[in-house]
Amino acid sequence: MKNVVAGVDIGGTNTVFGLVDKTGKVVSEGRLKTTDYPKVEDFVKALAAGINKLLAGQKDTELLGIGLGAPDANYHRGTIEHAPNLVWKGIIPLADLIKKEINVPVVLTNDANAAAMGEMVFGGAKGMKDFVVLTLGTGLGSGIVVDGKMVYGHTGFAGEVGHMIVVPNGRECGCGRHGCLETYASATGLVKTVSLMLSEMRDESILRDIPPSELTSKQVAEAAAKKDPVAVKAMEYTAEMLGFGIINSIVFTSPEAIFLFGGLAQAGEMLFAPVRKYLERHNYVLFKDTVKILPSGIPESNGAVMGAAALILNEIS
Amino acid sequence: MKNVVAGVDIGGTNTVFGLVDKTGKVVSEGRLKTTDYPKVEDFVKALAAGINKLLAGQKDTELLGIGLGAPDANYHRGTIEHAPNLVWKGIIPLADLIKKEINVPVVLTNDANAAAMGEMVFGGAKGMKDFVVLTLGTGLGSGIVVDGKMVYGHTGFAGEVGHMIVVPNGRECGCGRHGCLETYASATGLVKTVSLMLSEMRDESILRDIPPSELTSKQVAEAAAKKDPVAVKAMEYTAEMLGFGIINSIVFTSPEAIFLFGGLAQAGEMLFAPVRKYLERHNYVLFKDTVKILPSGIPESNGAVMGAAALILNEIS
Repeated sequence: MKNVVAGVDIGGTNTVFGLVDKTGKVVSEGRLKTTDYPKVEDFVKALAAGINKLLAGQKDTELLGIGLGAPDANYHRGTIEHAPNLVWKGIIPLADLIKKEINVPVVLTNDANAAAMGEMVFGGAKGMKDFVVLTLGTGLGSGIVVDGKMVYGHTGFAGEVGHMIVVPNGRECGCGRHGCLETYASATGLVKTVSLMLSEMRDESILRDIPPSELTSKQVAEAAAKKDPVAVKAMEYTAEMLGFGIINSIVFTSPEAIFLFGGLAQAGEMLFAPVRKYLERHNYVLFKDTVKILPSGIPESNGAVMGAAALILNEIS
Repeated sequence: MKNVVAGVDIGGTNTVFGLVDKTGKVVSEGRLKTTDYPKVEDFVKALAAGINKLLAGQKDTELLGIGLGAPDANYHRGTIEHAPNLVWKGIIPLADLIKKEINVPVVLTNDANAAAMGEMVFGGAKGMKDFVVLTLGTGLGSGIVVDGKMVYGHTGFAGEVGHMIVVPNGRECGCGRHGCLETYASATGLVKTVSLMLSEMRDESILRDIPPSELTSKQVAEAAAKKDPVAVKAMEYTAEMLGFGIINSIVFTSPEAIFLFGGLAQAGEMLFAPVRKYLERHNYVLFKDTVKILPSGIPESNGAVMGAAALILNEIS
């Protein structure tokens, strides 16, 4: 008998799920279009059918549990709550709904916490007790691990580093406030910073020819690699804001490492080098040279599924 | 046989120590002038003699352990490291030195962490799993508790909320950087804010008659209570900066409560009311109405000794 868990990554548009063994290997994978299911009950039925189909394709395999990563998920309550980017509104008791379809342990947390669990169980944080994972995508998500345990806090929503305000009265944030870290240090933030630099600089730039609504962080990174002056400046500013967010994070939990994950982190050394330089200069003296800035050790492609699988593996072991 | 622990609070000028029973009662207390002992070995001998003398004054009493709170103390290593406000320079292996004199379990942490342990074991945080203690004195110290455990982090120095930068290029901080929270939200910060307000406002104020080097946060709070316009404005600004630091702290560990302790917290509702109002307006939506702002439940007078005692009680229980 082979043992596996299911890892499920629920996104606003797509849901990816897979069977994962205890070494982190994704043995089979499936997909659903989240937006095809305006009723969460129908989604849960389709997801359960998908997982059961994957199981049927494996010989002598037992499912030990299901881990889920989703936006605005509450670990304590097993719910998704008021997620602006999902079709299901209000408070959704997702863990309970799934347990009714497949009776195994089910655990749910937000996608960044799942990424941090993946890092700890399968990735670069193996053996680390204190670290932080920052996911730099549309927003900035974070998972904080202290003394080997995920920080959920009193509410179950802890680890919202993207909503630390770094510029009072700064950029408008989706949360209704201004100047949150994620409006600067994320893929979306980088694109906004390009608009700022285009307004301030006179240099020629290929970025002047792309509508901001179509511009991606990947294009900016590629332009920066080709020494496009606006792109270079935008990357530097983004790295500096991220560095500022990081030095202000370190004073809370004194992590051994900060892992950068997600679209913007794909810029590689173009992002990592200036972030490290910022830290060398500006980190609080007690924490100087104590924090490594590292790329995620989890493949971007199925990192979210592995993270959700790690969450449940950690729970049942 | 009665069981007690010793709680020791080491300050730059004075050291206070006491025997504390498991209910938190300080059964007897002693003092040393820290500055009388330029050699740490002499200090340790005098402290051990002091504790032994207190023990001799009690009938049938056994000492179970010693807890110490000190500036720049490292919990993992039992050391005081490069403390600018102490006479002993470099790295001082204080826990080991004390253990050689009195062979019981000895544990050491910084004074703010000790205050947080005191709050958890004897004070207002009894039964809470997630909370933060901010000590508002000369600087701003902090102790962060997550899921019932003190956060020490990879280095043993975690919980330096006072060194979160809240104003880039702001006020000079003792740490060599600019704009750290403690330069605004502390007793010292309040006095500096009075100077700022005196420069900006035309109003008459009794604070114009006191040399800033002699002004205390208590005097400012008293003037504010009498509606001195400069003092009122300075208190408001300080509360706002503290509120800003608090909303940026909440996103990390999502605490149930934040306890304010120390000189500035003595201003009472004059500080607490505007801090709470700031939170109502500016807290991140997921944490709205989830965090209580509370005065410490530990008496200011021997809070530090009780905190250090709580530290060792928690360890040996």
